[in-house]
Amino acid sequence: MSAVIFAGIVGFGGMAAAQDESVDVEETTVEFADAYGAFMSDIGASSFFTVSNLWLLISAALVFTMHLGFSTLESGLTQSKNTVNVLFKNVFIVTMGILTYAFWGFNSMYPGDFNGYFAAGSWFDVDPTMELMSSAYADYTWYTDFIFQAMFAATAATIVSGAVAERVKLPSFMIFATLLVTFAYPVTGSWEWGGGWLNNFAAGEFVDFAGSSLVHGFGGFAALACVLLLGARRGKYVDGKIKPIVGHSMPLATIGVFLLFLGWFGFNGGSVLNADPYLVSFVFVTTALAAAAGAMGAIFLSWILLRKPDLSMALNGILAGLVGITAGADSISPAMSIVVGLIAGMIVVVSIIFFDKIKVDDPVGAVSVHGVCGVFGTLAVALFGDAAPFSSQLIGTVSICLFAFVFSIIVFGILKVTLGIRVSEEEEAEGLDIGEHGQEAYSIRPS
Amino acid sequence: MSAVIFAGIVGFGGMAAAQDESVDVEETTVEFADAYGAFMSDIGASSFFTVSNLWLLISAALVFTMHLGFSTLESGLTQSKNTVNVLFKNVFIVTMGILTYAFWGFNSMYPGDFNGYFAAGSWFDVDPTMELMSSAYADYTWYTDFIFQAMFAATAATIVSGAVAERVKLPSFMIFATLLVTFAYPVTGSWEWGGGWLNNFAAGEFVDFAGSSLVHGFGGFAALACVLLLGARRGKYVDGKIKPIVGHSMPLATIGVFLLFLGWFGFNGGSVLNADPYLVSFVFVTTALAAAAGAMGAIFLSWILLRKPDLSMALNGILAGLVGITAGADSISPAMSIVVGLIAGMIVVVSIIFFDKIKVDDPVGAVSVHGVCGVFGTLAVALFGDAAPFSSQLIGTVSICLFAFVFSIIVFGILKVTLGIRVSEEEEAEGLDIGEHGQEAYSIRPS
Amino acid sequence: MSAVIFAGIVGFGGMAAAQDESVDVEETTVEFADAYGAFMSDIGASSFFTVSNLWLLISAALVFTMHLGFSTLESGLTQSKNTVNVLFKNVFIVTMGILTYAFWGFNSMYPGDFNGYFAAGSWFDVDPTMELMSSAYADYTWYTDFIFQAMFAATAATIVSGAVAERVKLPSFMIFATLLVTFAYPVTGSWEWGGGWLNNFAAGEFVDFAGSSLVHGFGGFAALACVLLLGARRGKYVDGKIKPIVGHSMPLATIGVFLLFLGWFGFNGGSVLNADPYLVSFVFVTTALAAAAGAMGAIFLSWILLRKPDLSMALNGILAGLVGITAGADSISPAMSIVVGLIAGMIVVVSIIFFDKIKVDDPVGAVSVHGVCGVFGTLAVALFGDAAPFSSQLIGTVSICLFAFVFSIIVFGILKVTLGIRVSEEEEAEGLDIGEHGQEAYSIRPS
Repeated sequence: MSAVIFAGIVGFGGMAAAQDESVDVEETTVEFADAYGAFMSDIGASSFFTVSNLWLLISAALVFTMHLGFSTLESGLTQSKNTVNVLFKNVFIVTMGILTYAFWGFNSMYPGDFNGYFAAGSWFDVDPTMELMSSAYADYTWYTDFIFQAMFAATAATIVSGAVAERVKLPSFMIFATLLVTFAYPVTGSWEWGGGWLNNFAAGEFVDFAGSSLVHGFGGFAALACVLLLGARRGKYVDGKIKPIVGHSMPLATIGVFLLFLGWFGFNGGSVLNADPYLVSFVFVTTALAAAAGAMGAIFLSWILLRKPDLSMALNGILAGLVGITAGADSISPAMSIVVGLIAGMIVVVSIIFFDKIKVDDPVGAVSVHGVCGVFGTLAVALFGDAAPFSSQLIGTVSICLFAFVFSIIVFGILKVTLGIRVSEEEEAEGLDIGEHGQEAYSIRPS
Repeated sequence: MSAVIFAGIVGFGGMAAAQDESVDVEETTVEFADAYGAFMSDIGASSFFTVSNLWLLISAALVFTMHLGFSTLESGLTQSKNTVNVLFKNVFIVTMGILTYAFWGFNSMYPGDFNGYFAAGSWFDVDPTMELMSSAYADYTWYTDFIFQAMFAATAATIVSGAVAERVKLPSFMIFATLLVTFAYPVTGSWEWGGGWLNNFAAGEFVDFAGSSLVHGFGGFAALACVLLLGARRGKYVDGKIKPIVGHSMPLATIGVFLLFLGWFGFNGGSVLNADPYLVSFVFVTTALAAAAGAMGAIFLSWILLRKPDLSMALNGILAGLVGITAGADSISPAMSIVVGLIAGMIVVVSIIFFDKIKVDDPVGAVSVHGVCGVFGTLAVALFGDAAPFSSQLIGTVSICLFAFVFSIIVFGILKVTLGIRVSEEEEAEGLDIGEHGQEAYSIRPS
Repeated sequence: MSAVIFAGIVGFGGMAAAQDESVDVEETTVEFADAYGAFMSDIGASSFFTVSNLWLLISAALVFTMHLGFSTLESGLTQSKNTVNVLFKNVFIVTMGILTYAFWGFNSMYPGDFNGYFAAGSWFDVDPTMELMSSAYADYTWYTDFIFQAMFAATAATIVSGAVAERVKLPSFMIFATLLVTFAYPVTGSWEWGGGWLNNFAAGEFVDFAGSSLVHGFGGFAALACVLLLGARRGKYVDGKIKPIVGHSMPLATIGVFLLFLGWFGFNGGSVLNADPYLVSFVFVTTALAAAAGAMGAIFLSWILLRKPDLSMALNGILAGLVGITAGADSISPAMSIVVGLIAGMIVVVSIIFFDKIKVDDPVGAVSVHGVCGVFGTLAVALFGDAAPFSSQLIGTVSICLFAFVFSIIVFGILKVTLGIRVSEEEEAEGLDIGEHGQEAYSIRPS
């Protein structure tokens, strides 16, 4: 039958390639070739492995695209005098995040996945060829697992980046972001995706499909802690009045949200962890419907409250819908995903207005979009679906968000009293681009 | 030749699928599990199903990317004082389009696909699990079918959005776009892709592979109707002279066209409806060659006519080539696809100049790119290939475009005499961003 | 959940599907149908073919995205008065490149791949159906091979485009770029990827996995030749001092680098030439780690040397890491890929400063990023891996880069003494957008 033939073909092709490429690796070559052959025989029998692996890799590329989305969204929603700073932080976060996840995070987050290892750098010690060959290892290789998860890891710090924009001191933020991504994110991650205690509730395990809490709630509440420590931008709240500080480029912000929407197909769709036709397509549909409904909820509620069709709110509504469905994208029905998105889109409008009123200055609405809607999305798994009990969802999301908040208060608090976390009044006025980078973002000849 | 046979095969498969779908089962977990197992056994016999399903989902993501392309293209080619408005319309259209397609369009467009149902919301009534399980249902799940088609649906309204930019009244446009996407687009769609009358010509069935007529011609002629009802922007035609109103950002416009080109690989490539290696790669090649030739045709003709290498025309040439090959991307040879692209690229230059001369004010050239080249592309199937007789192509494209035009004249006409479709003279001068949204798109500190 | 069951079942696959689909055959295409049937039987036995073919097509789309990345990067790093010109050149290069690759390059580069043919246009003479059907033809169709390689081809000229920006005469550049892509690139390409002499070293064959030398070194040294012939931009080096000419939009530049990073997953990942789960995921990991390390190397070295965290250097560091790992992405270990990226990121900083010091004016750093790091990356295959001997790598990269340099000196030199290669002093001052295109890139109303 074809599967057997296939196994032969794939194994043969792969082997030849492997042999060609490992010409003069002496001692390990034979072992590697044997292991590779065995691996290919196993997965050769299942082209599902090959397709699933490819889908996870494509999903990793899509999630990577989200980092571009965050970069343009954050820079679009802030002032042009701080644009280089925003972009630099985003470039730093994603590249630092991939590296620290290789050195530490991946190991620390998935202990069960590779023999209970828990040590910085172990990833480089283990002979990866043998680990990768394991046909028992789900529907993708170890390297695929790493790259897909690595793309997620930096997201939490990116969320914080937007909230602290326009007044945070760069070196302090770089240190904080590195610690958050490297050490804090994997801790809560391991609680759930690493097979930890959130899977062991008697009432039924905690469910967070693609990270409403583990990524977005985590990032949102870390952001809240940082914003509280940092204080509002100068000129934002004057004499008890709220003075809007408008973003400098709505096209950039819009590009950002579209790219985030696009990337979310990989964020949620890839979280199926294989190419199951039913599940992946189901997740695509719930994700898209929730995002669309989020836009509607935000557009119409903000139109009523603010008396105008507000583009920023529409954009935040899309993100709210996406964050809202992320925990239940595989378990909430399409019809209910519309309800979830609609509510999330309305929540985000109210939440942004609320935080502004209590003078929590979050330039991009990160706390509302990721924090508040992340919690809502996690609870929605129980409220609008039946994959998990409400109690487990509540305990889970509160634990994760609280951990992120407390970790951030402590670490960012220490930075505050040591290095300082805020630029000088002059630098804030002049802009961080000149102050921190000696470079302006734009030099467009007036026409 | 090959495409004809293949078209037959695919069509045949689809029909059989429709007929086979008479299973009627209750909603229970046990039965779901049984059905799921049966489904997996069936499609498990065909990993081709899994790969094809994945390709359609990735194509849906690529087509989604086109909406970002439209957003940036349209905003780039219009004035900065209307940018928020352009972006808002695009955000609204794609999110509204996905939702209304779920509530109505998908049901209404593909009657054969789900037992002849024709009713709003039926998608939510049917137990989707059973439908999705049907192994007879082509090479992808029902959810995949929905999301892929939903991404197409909003395109028609997006095309109109560009043509009416800079003077249309927002609420009226939102109502019109919703009606167009929800009710008009599925009607013509069902004529062809829903197994309707365009498939039943004695001379040979009408062929519109990925929508030169059904999407682009439809959108382009709806746009023409709206532009005629709306009139030109103030200051465009003064004392019988044409005053160019230049776009505000050529980088945005260029980003838009590149993203549309990228997305078209999903638009056309996904329209193969499976991952057939030969056909999908064939379609990639014809699509890319036509786009490239379109650029060449537009660059060199506009260089001759306008005495300068015109970037806008080059960009429109790429789109013209893409629209031109869309109907025959699977049936026109690579060599002929270059000819089709080249001609489309030249047509679009002449058409844009022509419409400007007769004072049809279309800021982004949507009528020429989508309408005129859509008709040309549909006819090209017969002229430069042999997949369909010319008569069928002519009847098909005229019917579709005429329907779109008449529908738009009536609906937009009613809106004109009721709510009004045009902003006030003051608002047009000041810009719709301030007038409709109370927000400016840019706030870039001069440097 | 079902994944495990499913995994076991899927393998059977394509065969049944293929037979089902090639059932009905008629008319003149009996031969075609026979060939198609045979093809489907063959590849049906290997769904690996279908998946691999799809991955190569998706990779082609990703590499296409890199052209958008180059467009925005180059325009972002140059002045706003030359933006239309930069964009126009990029639009021209990619579209021209696809066409000339169809007419000439593909044939000329891969003689062994289609019966030793070597002639312009032969691609259109051969009956493609038969060629495409060949199951012996690797893991993808002939059309897939063409489109994937075509997307690579134009890259070399795009690299030159950035280096000569802001003063090159458009028609001369268009001629040069066309000759470079059409005739020069395929020559060196055939030396290695076309089965040429670089595969025949006694010490061990030259290895350039995805083109550190064949694409990037080639483009970088062609750029160096052109820059030397062209001279620096006026005002760059005045009275022995270097006057920085800053780019006009760091958001555009950042978007460009993120898109290039994204596209590189297809550039390197697709160069595996099939969907081998181990190899493709391995390449994703080495590519991402090298890019991330490149950013780190550039950020920290430039911080030390320039006393500020420099965004442009961070962006160039990412690209340097990507160029650096390209030759050995499949053979250098993840740990070593970090070392390669880190060094490349530091090299690019030093190289950019060096070229500026010796008054080689390269506005976007193309010579350093692509040329210098391309050579380094090629040598890194031997230095940080063991896939090839150092001598072969050295001979290969020097040969390729020298050929590109000499070809460019001759061809661009001839253009210099005939048509001229540089715009007038007035045009350079006013900007090429007005001078060559009669159009400005931006018209943003001050706010």
